[in-house]
This record gives sequence, C-alpha cells and structure tokens, in this order.
Amino acid sequence: MTIITVVGAGVMGTALTFPAADNGHEVRLVGTHLDEEIIAGCRRDRVHPRLRRTIHERVTPFSHTEIATALHDAEVVVLGVNSRGVHWAAQAIGPHVQPGQTILMVTKGLESTVEGELQVLPDVLRAHLPAAIRDRLQYAAIGGPSIAGELAARRHTSVVFVSRSAEVLPRLRALFSTPYYHIWTSDDLIGVELCVALKNPYALAVGLAAGVLEKQGNDPANAQNHNYAAAIFAQGLAETAVLVQHMGGRMETVYSLPGAGDLFVTTQGGRNSRMGLRLGKGLPFSDAGEEMSGETIEGVDAVIAIMPAIESMIARGVLAADALPLLRELHQIITRNTAVAFDFNRFFSKLPFAPPETAPGD
Amino acid sequence: MTIITVVGAGVMGTALTFPAADNGHEVRLVGTHLDEEIIAGCRRDRVHPRLRRTIHERVTPFSHTEIATALHDAEVVVLGVNSRGVHWAAQAIGPHVQPGQTILMVTKGLESTVEGELQVLPDVLRAHLPAAIRDRLQYAAIGGPSIAGELAARRHTSVVFVSRSAEVLPRLRALFSTPYYHIWTSDDLIGVELCVALKNPYALAVGLAAGVLEKQGNDPANAQNHNYAAAIFAQGLAETAVLVQHMGGRMETVYSLPGAGDLFVTTQGGRNSRMGLRLGKGLPFSDAGEEMSGETIEGVDAVIAIMPAIESMIARGVLAADALPLLRELHQIITRNTAVAFDFNRFFSKLPFAPPETAPGD
Repeated sequence: MTIITVVGAGVMGTALTFPAADNGHEVRLVGTHLDEEIIAGCRRDRVHPRLRRTIHERVTPFSHTEIATALHDAEVVVLGVNSRGVHWAAQAIGPHVQPGQTILMVTKGLESTVEGELQVLPDVLRAHLPAAIRDRLQYAAIGGPSIAGELAARRHTSVVFVSRSAEVLPRLRALFSTPYYHIWTSDDLIGVELCVALKNPYALAVGLAAGVLEKQGNDPANAQNHNYAAAIFAQGLAETAVLVQHMGGRMETVYSLPGAGDLFVTTQGGRNSRMGLRLGKGLPFSDAGEEMSGETIEGVDAVIAIMPAIESMIARGVLAADALPLLRELHQIITRNTAVAFDFNRFFSKLPFAPPETAPGD
Repeated sequence: MTIITVVGAGVMGTALTFPAADNGHEVRLVGTHLDEEIIAGCRRDRVHPRLRRTIHERVTPFSHTEIATALHDAEVVVLGVNSRGVHWAAQAIGPHVQPGQTILMVTKGLESTVEGELQVLPDVLRAHLPAAIRDRLQYAAIGGPSIAGELAARRHTSVVFVSRSAEVLPRLRALFSTPYYHIWTSDDLIGVELCVALKNPYALAVGLAAGVLEKQGNDPANAQNHNYAAAIFAQGLAETAVLVQHMGGRMETVYSLPGAGDLFVTTQGGRNSRMGLRLGKGLPFSDAGEEMSGETIEGVDAVIAIMPAIESMIARGVLAADALPLLRELHQIITRNTAVAFDFNRFFSKLPFAPPETAPGD
C-alpha cells in the first residue's frame, strides 16, 4: 500500500487525489489552517465544498493539526497550497517529513532572491526546510494545463512531471497515471516552473482585451477584440521564452504543454481573467482588487514577486531593459494604478522581427 | 498617389482596405468571379454585405471583368482570395501584372508538390504566373492574428509582414501601418507561412474539445473540457514547430505572433471551430461537411493539401513516422470518417519529454 499525502485541500490539491485514489493508493488530504471548513465539509458528507464533488472513498481528510500523522510513512507528499502558502508549508511539514520522501509541488510561483535572481518554488521550499532534512528529500513539480475541476471530473488532462532528480519521475508517473491523467516527464525544472508561474500574469493580461472591448461599447457589426487578446497571448509567450532562455531552460518547454498549453487554459476563465476584465474596463487596480477582496490573484502576486529580480537583472545589465515590456506594463498597472494603454509597437523586440518603431524607411 | 489593388473581396481582403485607405492611398477592391454580389452590394450602398460595414470612401469596387484596369499602375497587389483561389488568381492577374509590382498575400495555405515537398503559397503563386513576368515581381505575405471584422473595426491588430526580399518590407509597412494596425517585418517566409497555414487544422482540432464535452452531457459540478482543448493546442503548436524546424524556419516565429498568436485567435471562433465542434460531438466528417456545405473550411483543405507531402517525407525517411500524430489523426477523421478518439499518450514524442507509453518503470 502506497501512501500519498496531499497538503493543501484547495481545488488543485484535492483534484490530484482522484488519479492517486483511482490507482488504489491510500490518500491523505491535509487542510491548511485556512482549509478548516473544507476539511469539516469533507468529513461531514464527503463533499468538497469548493469542488462540489464527492471525494474518493480512499481519501481520508486531516486537519492541519494532524499533519504529523498524515505525513507519517507517506511515499509522496503533494504540495497543493497556493503560492502564498509555500513558506507556511515549509514550516508545517519541516518537522515531520522523513528521509526518502518525495515532495511533488503543484504550487506555482517564483520569488526574487536578495541577490536579485529568480528562484523557482521547489528551490524556495527546499531552502526553507530544516537543514537536517532538506538534502534527504526529492523534489518534483507538475506543469501543464490542468483545471482542477476538470481533473476531478476525470476529464482528459495532460501534464508534465518535472524534476532535477530524473530517477524519481518514472515512479511518480506510475503512481498518478490513469486513462484520463496523461503524464510526460522532463528534467527542465527551470523551464517548466517559469512557464507555469508566468502563465498567470500573462493570462491576466490576455483578459484585459475583453474589458477594453466592454469599455468601447457596442460596434454595429459586433466586432470582438480577439486580435488584441491574441497579440498579448503571443507577447506573453515570447516574454516567457526570453526568461526561459535567459535562465537556461528549453524552448520546447515554452511551445508545448507547460508554456503554450498552460497559458491557453488559464485564459479560458478563472480569477486572473476576471481581474484582467476589470482592469481592461478601466477600473484602477486598487478598486478592482477591492471588488475581488479575499481572493488570491496568482497573476498579481507573481508580478509583484518577480519584478525585484527583473529590475536587478536589468540594472546589472544581464537582461535588456526592453526585454519584457508587457510584464513591466502589468507591474505599473498593479503597483501604480496606471490605466491600460499598451504601446503594441514595443512588443516583440527580442524576436528576429524588425519592430514598427525602429525600422528604416518609416 | 499610391495605388493599392486588393484582389478578392472577401472579408479579409476588404479588411485590409481600411488601413490602406486610412493612409490616404487609392485603393481598388476587385471581386473574384465568386464575389459578384459583394461588389454589387458595395457599389449599391457602399456596405460590404459580409463585413456588414461601410467601405472607406477611398475604396473603388471593381468586378473581376475589370481586373486589367484595376491592376494598372498599382504599386501593391494584395491577394485576398481563399486558399482554393490561388490558381485562379495566378491566371487572373498573370496577363496584367506589371514589372516592379509587389504581390502581398494574405491567402493562407500549403500545397504538396509532385516531388513530395511542401510548398508555401507565395511560391505556388509565383510558379503559376507567366514565365516572362514572375521574376520581375516581389512577393510578400502577412501572418499573425487578424480577424477581418476586427481589423475593419480598427481594433488593435498586430501582424508580421514577411518576404525573402527584405528590401520591400519597410515600404510595405509604411503603406499599411496605422495607429491600430501594427506591423513587424520578418524574412522567415517558411516559418510564417507554415504557422499561418497550420493554425487552421490545429484550431479545428482544438474545437473538437467543445464537441466532446457536449456529447458527454451534463456534469453535476459543471466541469468543462479546457484541459483537453489546451493539450491539443499545445500539441498543435509543437507539431508546427516540428515542421518549421524541418523546413528551416525559426522557432521564434512559432512561439510569437504567427504561431501561438494566430493559433490562439483562430480557436476563438469561426468555421474551423464550428467544424471541430460538430466532429467532436460525434458526427462523421461526411455528415458534418454536409451541414456546412458551401463553406470553405480552411483547416480541412489544409489537411488534405498537406498530407501527400507528409506521407512522402515519412516514406523517404526525412520525417519520423510519429512526428505529427495529431495531423495524421485529423486526416483519418476527415478522409475516413473515423470517430474522434485521441490517444493522448502519442502526443509530444518529438519533445525532450519522456512520453507516457515508452518510459521505463511503467
């Protein structure tokens, strides 16, 4: 009997209990201190209140106060907290994780280090675990288009499991693969983690297009604003490529599941898109944020978390000042309440295209 | 006064008259033999019946019988016919084009040559023009996310003008650039033309997901099928990358406007998506095609046009047999009426990911 413990009882952590439990494993679902109502609900009637779905019979809910018991003898610890919860998670699991366990992170995010570099979350987690244990664990992560409610409904879902310790990947895949959960494996940890973290701000940016359209009002021929959205989608992916290349990841990661696939799925709805819609309509960020108070907007958190490292890279001359115009524009919108007014001509400068503003003959 | 003649009065050709006319040029819009009603409508009340928008005052409509007059002294000839119209267009303009004119193609498509290679449409056109003139013209093309109705509404639209004759690009850009029409330039003709042609079949494939969902019926928690769509989106882009790399194009073209951007916009609606929806619901292609009779489905045409070259490349050993599983599956669905039943595990085999079916430990 393999024991798989999921820490974080939000929709994504809970969704991963479905393939694990369908494969016959003992699955323990541990709520954080913010998940008490979810765990109470799961215990009461076996229905996860946010997923609105009955949890699998092989899933046992645990309160965060029972985390020691829940982690005991688990082969895999899935980390399903949101990006703000990684430091909490390191503290919560630190005293209880056991040598040889594998941490599988579904949490997405990036942090800026004091040295002004970007750090991927598996490395952030590792750095915050007790020194005595951190080198005796394996670390892996999941990237790719995976809306939690669809995975829990056992809809076809295709993802990449990634680790620098390639030897753990076949085992992880065997534990989670089902006829609906399709798992590729990769050792491009930097590429995958950059893609899955950056999809959130760039999906928010794609969502601006719908708000801009709404603000413009009705067009007699009912023209939409998809060209605007698609240019931002492309620029977001191109900026992702700039950072992936800069940090030593692979381009193939960008134009496949972790990059293009995950960005696509994230533009199809969710909180980032809803925030983008509000900002596109012309609400200043401070007002839009108030309207969505209490909700974590991963795209907003990511921009704020990333920008110190980006600024540092530019100041040190290792990244061109014009390399990430869309990300920098988002940062202005979020931190300075500026209006959405893209200069499209600043996009795509890091590609082998001659940009509109600088070419000869204009 | 610069004269720009657009051949093909469909929505895309006509949309391009807006930036050209806004820049003060004399624009001539020539219908094909299939566009007689459109030209009659434009002459009657200046409203394009399919765009449902008043054409610009500087646009003069011409019937196909007046093509000689319309082409006379034009600096640029925009070719806006659909992919089936390229051979017609070569015959129609061949006797009337003049040395030094630039052909700017907005028509998308690929053809298989008798030698079993893929040929991009500017090269197809050139080959079918009279020998005496074909080397005395310049050829360029437009790629990138550009829904015609949005361009005609002067919504922000970002595209790439591409040519092997890089010297023509600044002039073309100057003729068409407006505050809403943003033009980058590129010499990656192969990459751009592959991307914009392949977006049609792959957008059709993304559209299958909605049909598959509809067929499955209601889910109590209202789960959608975006994970399925996103995996296909990613696989489509990855297969595009395989062909672009194989034919000497650039990866940056794939993960920016012509590849990711144009594929994204094409999934947001249109005929390819509607055909995908029908096939996904379980209609055999022959029935789905009947329902949409009379409509050109560019994604269907592209698969049929491309496959002889793909089969030849595989037979000659220059392309791996498993390189394009999604395109081959689409071909089966279209030509053999097979049901939609993807083996997702066959995807992504050409990437540095270990695929689900072949990895050790499974």
